[in-house]
Amino acid sequence: MTKINDSYLKLPGSYLFSAIGKKVRAFEAAHPETKVIRLGIGDVTRPLTKTVIDALHSAVEEMGQEETFRGYAPDLGYEFLREAIAGADYQERGCAIAPDEIFVSDGAKCDCGNIQEIFSLKNKVAVCDPVYPVYVDSNVMAGRAGEYDEERGCFTGIIYMPCLEENGFLPMLPEETPDLIYLCFPNNPTGSVITRPELQKWVDYANEKGSVILYDAAYEAYIRTEGIPHSIYECDGADTCAIEFHSFSKNAGFTGLRLGYTVVPKKLVRDGTPLNALWARRHGTKYNGAPYIVQRAGEAVYSKEGRKEVKGLVDDYMENASLILKGLKEAGFTASGGVDAPYIWLKVPEGMTSWEFFDALLERAGVVGTPGSGFGPCGEGYFRLTAFGSRENTEEALERIRTNFGG
Amino acid sequence: MTKINDSYLKLPGSYLFSAIGKKVRAFEAAHPETKVIRLGIGDVTRPLTKTVIDALHSAVEEMGQEETFRGYAPDLGYEFLREAIAGADYQERGCAIAPDEIFVSDGAKCDCGNIQEIFSLKNKVAVCDPVYPVYVDSNVMAGRAGEYDEERGCFTGIIYMPCLEENGFLPMLPEETPDLIYLCFPNNPTGSVITRPELQKWVDYANEKGSVILYDAAYEAYIRTEGIPHSIYECDGADTCAIEFHSFSKNAGFTGLRLGYTVVPKKLVRDGTPLNALWARRHGTKYNGAPYIVQRAGEAVYSKEGRKEVKGLVDDYMENASLILKGLKEAGFTASGGVDAPYIWLKVPEGMTSWEFFDALLERAGVVGTPGSGFGPCGEGYFRLTAFGSRENTEEALERIRTNFGG
Repeated sequence: MTKINDSYLKLPGSYLFSAIGKKVRAFEAAHPETKVIRLGIGDVTRPLTKTVIDALHSAVEEMGQEETFRGYAPDLGYEFLREAIAGADYQERGCAIAPDEIFVSDGAKCDCGNIQEIFSLKNKVAVCDPVYPVYVDSNVMAGRAGEYDEERGCFTGIIYMPCLEENGFLPMLPEETPDLIYLCFPNNPTGSVITRPELQKWVDYANEKGSVILYDAAYEAYIRTEGIPHSIYECDGADTCAIEFHSFSKNAGFTGLRLGYTVVPKKLVRDGTPLNALWARRHGTKYNGAPYIVQRAGEAVYSKEGRKEVKGLVDDYMENASLILKGLKEAGFTASGGVDAPYIWLKVPEGMTSWEFFDALLERAGVVGTPGSGFGPCGEGYFRLTAFGSRENTEEALERIRTNFGG
Repeated sequence: MTKINDSYLKLPGSYLFSAIGKKVRAFEAAHPETKVIRLGIGDVTRPLTKTVIDALHSAVEEMGQEETFRGYAPDLGYEFLREAIAGADYQERGCAIAPDEIFVSDGAKCDCGNIQEIFSLKNKVAVCDPVYPVYVDSNVMAGRAGEYDEERGCFTGIIYMPCLEENGFLPMLPEETPDLIYLCFPNNPTGSVITRPELQKWVDYANEKGSVILYDAAYEAYIRTEGIPHSIYECDGADTCAIEFHSFSKNAGFTGLRLGYTVVPKKLVRDGTPLNALWARRHGTKYNGAPYIVQRAGEAVYSKEGRKEVKGLVDDYMENASLILKGLKEAGFTASGGVDAPYIWLKVPEGMTSWEFFDALLERAGVVGTPGSGFGPCGEGYFRLTAFGSRENTEEALERIRTNFGG
C-alpha cells in the first residue's frame, strides 16, 4: 500500500498567497461594484521592455528555422547568459564568480525551494522571523522541520531568528548553531537591508561554524543606498560558505517569463564534497533547463539598453514605494522599508491582528495587502504592501487608506 | 557543521547523457575531420512549426503591452491550456479527466523526477529494467533506493522488473509487491508498446495492492497501431491508481521550449489523502509555473492546424525509424521498436558489451547512440538509436553502419 509523504500534512493551511487569493475572490464575488487594488503579492505590472521583447521575437524566429533551432539546453544554462551574469553581476562588483559557478533556472522560488535537497535531513535550519514562506515550507515538506506548534505558530525543529523593530528588522545570531541559514536582503517581507560589515559578521560566523548561508538576493536591483552589498560575495570568504539566489522577476519584470539563477562557488565544500557538483547533479537529473528564448531575453537584460530599461522600471516602482511610505505616514501609520526595497512594512492599528487588518483593509478600502503574521509569528501586528502596482492604482489605494484609516 | 545529502554519493558516475556528452566531445577534439552524427540523446531536430511560432510571437507582443502583460501564472497552469489538454488528450479518447486534474509544468523529466517527493521514503519502488535513468536516480537522491550493488549494477532497495526479448520487452508483475510502479509506454529505451488488455492487468494489480502507477506517456504521439492505448486512463479504474506524465518535447518539438503536464486524478487517494492536493501543494510551494508565452505555444499545438503540423513532424521522424530498422536489418543486426515509438533497440554484435559497441560505433562510424547498459543491467548487450536526427544524417549514419559493421 502506497504511503504518502506525511510531512505535507504538517503544513498549516494552504500556501500564504493561495489563501489570500481565495479571500480576495470571495470578496470580489460579493462586491462586484468594488474595484479591488492588489498590493499584496509581489507581482510586477509593467510590461517587458523593448530590448527584451526584441530579443524574444528574434529567438522565436531562430526556433522556427532548421539551421538555428535549439533543442535541449546545456545543463547549467547557455554560456552566453552565464557569461553576461558573471560579468555584470559579479566581476564588475569585484566578486570572483566564474560562469561555471552559475546555474540558470526558471526562477529563484524554485531554486530556494529545491536547494535543501542536496543537504542532509539532519541539518538544522535557521530562518528569519518574519520570513518568505518557501524557505520554511520546503523544509517542512522534506521532513526537516519537526512538528508544528500551534500556540507559537512555529515548527519545533526550526530555529527562528526574530527580526524586531528595535533591531532595524535584522536577525541576530542565534544561540543554537544552525547548519543552514536562510537570509534575504533586501528583505522580503520587511524591506530592510543589511550593511556590508553586518553581513560580514554572518559570513564569518558561517565559516567559523561550518554552516552554509542560503542568500536570497532577488531584490538587489532595488538597492539605492551607497555601500549596501548587492551580493553576499562582496564579503570576504563568502565563497566558502554561501549559495546565492537571483531572480529576473523583480528587476526586469520576468514573473510571467520565468528566469533566475543560483551561484554555488566551487570553493564551497562540505563533508569533503563540493556543493557545486551536487547541485549540478540535481540540475542534470531533475531539471531540463530554462527555455532558449527566455535565456536570450535574460541576456538582453544585460545589454547597455537593457540595463537602462531595468533602471527605468526599478525607478518607477521605487517612486510608488516613496508614495506609499509618505501616504501611510500621513494616515498616521508607522512604516519602514521601501527605501532600498519594493516592500513597505507597516504596523497595523493598535488592537488589531494582521489578518483583522487584512480583512478591514479589503472590506473598507478594497485594497489587498499581505498580513505580516503569514510570514511568521514576529510578523504579527505588521502588514506588507508592495510597490509593484501601477502608479494610478497605488495613488488610489493610498487615497482610500487615508479616507478610511487616516486620523 | 553542514552535512550533505549523502544519498547523492550512491549514484554511480554521472548522469548517463552527461557521460555520453563527455565521450563525444573528447572524440570530436581528437578527430576534428569526422562529422559526428548524433542518434543518442532523444533530442528533436526539426524546427518549431508555423502555428507554434505564430502563437509565440503573438504572446510576446502581449507581454510588451501594459494592458495584456501577464505576471505570475496560475499555480496549475492557464485554464486555456488545461482545457485544451483535457479535451484533446482525454475527453476525445473517452477518458473522464477534468482540467483541474491537469498540472502544467516545464517538462515531463522534471515532473517524473519530482513526483516521488509527495510519497513516503518508506515506499518500495519498482522500475522496468532497462529504464529511463531519471526514475531511479531521483529515488536514489531522495534516499529510497538502498545501496548500490556494483556487481549486479542495481540498487538493493529497488525492485527491477526485467524486460526481455522473449517477452516483447514488457515487464512482468514482480514477486515482491511495490508501492510505486514506474511504467513508460511507448517505452524509452526499448521502443516497445503495451496493449490495452496487458496494461489493464497492471491497473487491476495496482488497485488490488493499493500501489500507485507512475505512467510516463511522453511518446504517445508515436503510436500508430490501432488499439494501443495512448493514455493509461483508457483502462478501467486507472483514475484510482495512476498518475500520468506528458511532454510537448517529442510530439511538437518543445525540447528547447520546455512544456509538459501531469495528470493526478481527484479520485486517487492514499492514506486518506487525495494525491491531487499534495501535488498542488508541491507545485504551489516549489514551482512557479511555465512561461505564459510557452503555455500559449502549447495551446496552439491543439489547434486544427497545430495538430496537422504535429502529425507531419511525427510522420517525418517515423520515416527515419523505418529507415533505421531496415538499414540495421540489412547490416545483419537484430532490432525492435521503431514502429510505435521513435526508439530502435538493437542487439550489439556477439561478444561486445554495450559500451564497447558505443566506442566502436563512435570510432569506426562517427555515430553516437546510447549503450543499453546505461539504462539498467538487462540493457547490457543492447543499444538505443533514435529517430530524431535529420533525414540526411540518419541516412548517412546507416550508410556508415552498413559499411563498417555490415556483412
